[in-house]
Amino acid sequence: MKIKRLSSRAADFDAALTQLLAFEATADEKLEATVASILADVRQRGDEAVLEYTRKFDRLPLANAAAMELPREELRAAFDSLPAAQRSALEQAAQRVTDYHQKQVQTSWSYTDADGTMLGQQVTPLDRVGLYVPGGKAAYPSSVLMNALPAKVAGVDELIMVVPTPDGVKNQLVLAAAHLSGVDRVFTIGGAQAVAAMAYGTASIPRVDKIVGPGNAYVASAKRRVFGACGIDMIAGPSEILVICDGKTNPDWIAMDLFSQAEHDELAQAILLSPDAEFIERVAQSADHLLDQMPRKEIIRTALENRGALIHVADMEEACAIANRIAPEHLELSVEDPQAWLPKLKHAGAIFMGRYTSESLGDYCAGPNHVLPTSGTARFSSPLGVYDFQKRSSLIQVSPQGAQKLGAIASELAFGEGLQAHAQSALFRKG
Amino acid sequence: MKIKRLSSRAADFDAALTQLLAFEATADEKLEATVASILADVRQRGDEAVLEYTRKFDRLPLANAAAMELPREELRAAFDSLPAAQRSALEQAAQRVTDYHQKQVQTSWSYTDADGTMLGQQVTPLDRVGLYVPGGKAAYPSSVLMNALPAKVAGVDELIMVVPTPDGVKNQLVLAAAHLSGVDRVFTIGGAQAVAAMAYGTASIPRVDKIVGPGNAYVASAKRRVFGACGIDMIAGPSEILVICDGKTNPDWIAMDLFSQAEHDELAQAILLSPDAEFIERVAQSADHLLDQMPRKEIIRTALENRGALIHVADMEEACAIANRIAPEHLELSVEDPQAWLPKLKHAGAIFMGRYTSESLGDYCAGPNHVLPTSGTARFSSPLGVYDFQKRSSLIQVSPQGAQKLGAIASELAFGEGLQAHAQSALFRKG
Repeated sequence: MKIKRLSSRAADFDAALTQLLAFEATADEKLEATVASILADVRQRGDEAVLEYTRKFDRLPLANAAAMELPREELRAAFDSLPAAQRSALEQAAQRVTDYHQKQVQTSWSYTDADGTMLGQQVTPLDRVGLYVPGGKAAYPSSVLMNALPAKVAGVDELIMVVPTPDGVKNQLVLAAAHLSGVDRVFTIGGAQAVAAMAYGTASIPRVDKIVGPGNAYVASAKRRVFGACGIDMIAGPSEILVICDGKTNPDWIAMDLFSQAEHDELAQAILLSPDAEFIERVAQSADHLLDQMPRKEIIRTALENRGALIHVADMEEACAIANRIAPEHLELSVEDPQAWLPKLKHAGAIFMGRYTSESLGDYCAGPNHVLPTSGTARFSSPLGVYDFQKRSSLIQVSPQGAQKLGAIASELAFGEGLQAHAQSALFRKG
Repeated sequence: MKIKRLSSRAADFDAALTQLLAFEATADEKLEATVASILADVRQRGDEAVLEYTRKFDRLPLANAAAMELPREELRAAFDSLPAAQRSALEQAAQRVTDYHQKQVQTSWSYTDADGTMLGQQVTPLDRVGLYVPGGKAAYPSSVLMNALPAKVAGVDELIMVVPTPDGVKNQLVLAAAHLSGVDRVFTIGGAQAVAAMAYGTASIPRVDKIVGPGNAYVASAKRRVFGACGIDMIAGPSEILVICDGKTNPDWIAMDLFSQAEHDELAQAILLSPDAEFIERVAQSADHLLDQMPRKEIIRTALENRGALIHVADMEEACAIANRIAPEHLELSVEDPQAWLPKLKHAGAIFMGRYTSESLGDYCAGPNHVLPTSGTARFSSPLGVYDFQKRSSLIQVSPQGAQKLGAIASELAFGEGLQAHAQSALFRKG
């Protein structure tokens, strides 16, 4: 396997790193036009349009709109029929994810100042959330848990899930995860038509306040377009891992961590930073040696050869600076004393600290969310969390006494801005 | 003035309310194409492109790129030369806004579970933020405070401001507010070219991590398009107020509160809900009576006649239900015991409680932010706050003991999803 080697000492390192990280989703005008027309059609014709697209794209002969919904008993049956070990693993993961997310719940707050004026924020959950789950190969039960459980912890009243079932094939693990996460209603629809149905509502599918969850290019485009009619989570780019290693972790472990990112798809990015040049070559040898055991070896090879890199850095300080520049989705800090380096790390979706913390433990069951900012967006955004399913209303209750003081300030500034009704409204209260 | 009257008892009320609230920004293909080309040009040619557009659109004969930046001393001089009353009002407002926003600061947290595994989130400020301030009439110093101070409270390292100065005309109040808020650097550029310069960076203008602040249709389109390269705040629609009044507030006060929204622009929306039909007519009479004193009376009249409404409701319960359906940007609860009704209000950007709390007091100086979700987006989004300038990284440090248990769960689920490298990476740690 030919994985790119870079050195931070090279004169062209900065340009080489920029090129390595460059990724731009190409705009596809035909796809955009298709999505725009599906959205408009569903908005206008509701269920009838959704049924037509589902019959056509998913080859699903639905008799009527009611047939789009899966009975709850079917979800329970899927859960009950799981092998015991799998069911137990799913339950333990769900419990840990729930426990962690409960620490994120935000609560209303207020205070009263000296003249009796009360100020604060009321925090409330969203009423109804829609979860998009892809059909086919990329349908992951862990993704159902990671998207549904924070909404449930936030106190969202109703959680709707859509999952396409092309040719009627259902993913039993996904249905089981939906049951376990407390999803309220499941519809077997997908694509832009499912996003439209949830954003605008139809006779059968209730309008939601926010749509979350991964999807293909049609789903991503549809989510971008309905933003405003409802909220959306982030639009994810290819998955990424950056491993910083001091050279003292088993090189097999590090190679497998790079594989675990690369196996997602050919565009996934896996990068190793180490101050130990000899260690870098040992990781490369481990990768060559381990590749053949991997069922997804062709995907792994393509991803690592095209978008991976093993980078020799001067020292740990420089490794942290490069990590901040990359702002990776997943950052493994496979070093002796990870706490010592944590204050230097500013931008990352999740930081996996110490030799025992493989990214995969966090992906499934450690507790934190696996929906994380990609493509450098960790510079300004955060993991999916309970806070994404809560929102705030400012609270202001001005006392008669407070209205004297605030009325004077507000009217002065309002006159300065030429907004006389604002000024007069404040002066009325000043008395 | 002919303000629409509606009654919740009317058979067609639901349809009438839907029509009243309908607002859709029309897509302007020519504008979109112009913005796309400006963004591409600035991305490629940097300062040269920004200078050309600024000379052309703002008729500003800048000698070179360095001339785009205002010296700090000019900001200070603007502040020092304010009339004392205005300077004091601005200072008091800034202090109150700072005090309130300090309550929003979020801090890192972590916990260690029974087997020694540490989990948490590290909360860090954004490195660099760009604040867009419109030129001309809609340039409000209060808006500078409301956007800049939360970023400063969050601990943002560097705050860049752009403000166009067409024909070289500078708004001294805006410069004074920038000085007071601690803005680090100010550039006299605007439009899509300023958004592009901040999103991508040029030789003279540093790349930012997030762009906030209001702007015209070109700026809004540019912000939507650069999202991903950097973060953006919300894209605001027309401003709105919903007043719920029990009929016992001075009708002049309520009429002026409706005016204070309507005076913003012709598309602003002001609605009154009251169970007291006679009171509604008194507010209408007050409006007729007060209109002539208003310098912006034509804007107020147009807004109220086209988009305003006085709605007679059955009772306060129903008023709260309608408010939740509207999810207004500003909600005045002008009633005897506002605390009693608060639990029934789920969706609003800000709630102004009690007869003394005019929206204008909150717009300028009560403390809470005046950048609020519009067009019903309060169903899923929040006022601008310190949390918009902080982001989180998940922290996971699995202990050797924890790796046994988590490795078993993760590998079971990874095999179930067909991701063998994930499973193997977890099993290596399980040992």
